[in-house]
Amino acid sequence: MKFIDGGVTAPKGFYAANCAAGIKYSDRDDMAMIISEADCVSAGTYTRNVVKAAPVIWDRELTDGEGPIRAVVVNAGIANACTGEEGMEYCRATAEETAKSVTKFGDFTSSAVLVASTGVIGMQLPMEKLRSGVKAMSQSLENTRGAANRAARAIMTTDTIPKEAAAEIEIGGVPVTIAAMTKGSGMIHPDMCTMLCFVTTDADIDKKLLHTALKDVVEDTFNMISVDGDTSTNDTCVILANGLAKNPPIRDQGEEYNKFKEALFEVLKKLAMMMAGDGEGATALFEVIVNGAKTRDEARTLAKSVITSSLTKAAIYGHDANWGRILCALGYSGVDFDPTKVVLSFESEAGRLLIAKNGHGTDFDEDKATEILSKDHVTAIIDMNMGDVSATAWGCDLTHEYVSINADYRS
Amino acid sequence: MKFIDGGVTAPKGFYAANCAAGIKYSDRDDMAMIISEADCVSAGTYTRNVVKAAPVIWDRELTDGEGPIRAVVVNAGIANACTGEEGMEYCRATAEETAKSVTKFGDFTSSAVLVASTGVIGMQLPMEKLRSGVKAMSQSLENTRGAANRAARAIMTTDTIPKEAAAEIEIGGVPVTIAAMTKGSGMIHPDMCTMLCFVTTDADIDKKLLHTALKDVVEDTFNMISVDGDTSTNDTCVILANGLAKNPPIRDQGEEYNKFKEALFEVLKKLAMMMAGDGEGATALFEVIVNGAKTRDEARTLAKSVITSSLTKAAIYGHDANWGRILCALGYSGVDFDPTKVVLSFESEAGRLLIAKNGHGTDFDEDKATEILSKDHVTAIIDMNMGDVSATAWGCDLTHEYVSINADYRS
Repeated sequence: MKFIDGGVTAPKGFYAANCAAGIKYSDRDDMAMIISEADCVSAGTYTRNVVKAAPVIWDRELTDGEGPIRAVVVNAGIANACTGEEGMEYCRATAEETAKSVTKFGDFTSSAVLVASTGVIGMQLPMEKLRSGVKAMSQSLENTRGAANRAARAIMTTDTIPKEAAAEIEIGGVPVTIAAMTKGSGMIHPDMCTMLCFVTTDADIDKKLLHTALKDVVEDTFNMISVDGDTSTNDTCVILANGLAKNPPIRDQGEEYNKFKEALFEVLKKLAMMMAGDGEGATALFEVIVNGAKTRDEARTLAKSVITSSLTKAAIYGHDANWGRILCALGYSGVDFDPTKVVLSFESEAGRLLIAKNGHGTDFDEDKATEILSKDHVTAIIDMNMGDVSATAWGCDLTHEYVSINADYRS
Repeated sequence: MKFIDGGVTAPKGFYAANCAAGIKYSDRDDMAMIISEADCVSAGTYTRNVVKAAPVIWDRELTDGEGPIRAVVVNAGIANACTGEEGMEYCRATAEETAKSVTKFGDFTSSAVLVASTGVIGMQLPMEKLRSGVKAMSQSLENTRGAANRAARAIMTTDTIPKEAAAEIEIGGVPVTIAAMTKGSGMIHPDMCTMLCFVTTDADIDKKLLHTALKDVVEDTFNMISVDGDTSTNDTCVILANGLAKNPPIRDQGEEYNKFKEALFEVLKKLAMMMAGDGEGATALFEVIVNGAKTRDEARTLAKSVITSSLTKAAIYGHDANWGRILCALGYSGVDFDPTKVVLSFESEAGRLLIAKNGHGTDFDEDKATEILSKDHVTAIIDMNMGDVSATAWGCDLTHEYVSINADYRS
């Protein structure tokens, strides 16, 4: 597997477009479209929040079904959540407009169009602006690197950087590409999947296997990040596979499937880390590796408990090696363990330092600790010494800027 | 029941003292002592965090036992958590010094002395300073209003106000007093009990009933508040009953027991609300009332999910009626419900406003909403329309100041 420079247009047969529809933002793009020239099998993972945005309901029905998928249409600014029947109408109208407007790759129906929204909960979408946006984008589809990047930018809300990744593998000697774009910065505590992520691939792969691969990979990537503990109403991760790579079809969980899944994991892990590091107001990516747990669930729970601790996150912001807060967060995670066996180190590009063991602190060099914690990617490595299972979670520091962003988001 | 002006010295036979021992703070009091002139029955509730501070282990053994309790010694600045065997030694030495120094009310042993600590995790206590503090306080015990207030101030860390409450009831025609002091501002997400709370009463009550009353009341008061979702290693709530009111002894769960429990509830609820409103950096107390839930557990879970949502807390700080975040927090709580049935109002001394129903927003007056949310006690009233059970939780807004306080707490 090798990473390549590219976005959602990197796999064969995928086109992207973007536009400024003026939905809520002004002076910036706020809509994106991805189209495949050939029918795709699809899979999706969605929020487990009881309050589900209309597009989540729309997409899940389509990706659960057997029909081909051809398009994804996304808007930023308004989430189309808590919008009742009217919200479902907007999904339908957007999909219909797309099926009508995009004609250059042959006919498809509205049930081949996924839709997604991100932004403020509770506002209704301005339907005419959406329609105009869809029409404009249907005329500007490109399968270029630039088009993919502009699409990734158009779906940003409080994100500060667009988030794209692409990788290439060989399946039966044939090059296959997997690419994705994602967005998410606040209300990030994915449960099933992250805010919005769109994965394209030209692999020829069975629909059920595609779903299994996505579900497993999302568990270890997007479901292991947290910015603020708030699980969104809109979390959506969909993958479209159009088969245009013409690889020997992947029909069972053998070696080729594993190769595909591993590449998918690397692509989504890269994006998950970008998302955590670009958490609202964040100055640092905070990675927590838990080793030596008894079970995978316990390892995951411990790592996520540290990553979501407000006090630990604030200490990371202050470059303060306040390791007691990490032990405290492990302690209230719900996992039983012996505190005297825990070994904790901090690591970054400035080095690695043993901070605590045997249930109390080592006599570590505070200046060195501060130096390590001042980098923009900080890792806490925790050995529970109970077993041999590991898990990694990604978050960010808690900053003044997070509060500023969220104290007045609607205006 | 009536509230009275008073602190832990209000019930008969209780004395308090304070001193500046220089444990970590300078230029302020940092130790407090409560002594009963007569033996007390006791009960305690403690943190469920796996990582327990040494005093929690020390106190639990004593309050679980049958021996009488006479004293509580508290220090602020260092939590004596993650301090290993040495930490337990400090508890023992503090209790022994207290038993040796306090002689004016007859002899008692170190196993009649509870100890408590709050502050930074992982540092060792300066034992000689602790000893000097105990000696000084043993000479300055007073059963005055002022002594109680100074003790309540001495145990503060990032608290901005001392927290005391006292109430008087009649048991069998005899006046009985219940009083308490508490501290807590950050790392507040009590699971079993809050940071530190010391309740004194002159009631004559059976030890088992005292424990039952405390456990039940703590569930609906301290266990329903959250400042930051971090459950401390030191959470402790103990109650001492010395029987000096000479009321007809409370020996069963009849009318008199209920009267006692209700007064205890009112005292601890008042302190819980003070603690939430004085959360680190808070500008407002945020109260969440959930009505119409199916079960008590579900009502509690829903209310606590809203109170702990960082995004909701930041919106409250910004006086922004961002009701979508509240529906979102209900949605990820783990409780199943029909979003279209939820009715949400905001209330404060500026009035009450219906904000959302039928799963979407009402066309509410934004200026009025902002006015309501600008007060220092804001309530969200949520009707789930699923049943007839209610629960109330208390928290606070998330502010720049919370980040400032916690980015650099150790220095």
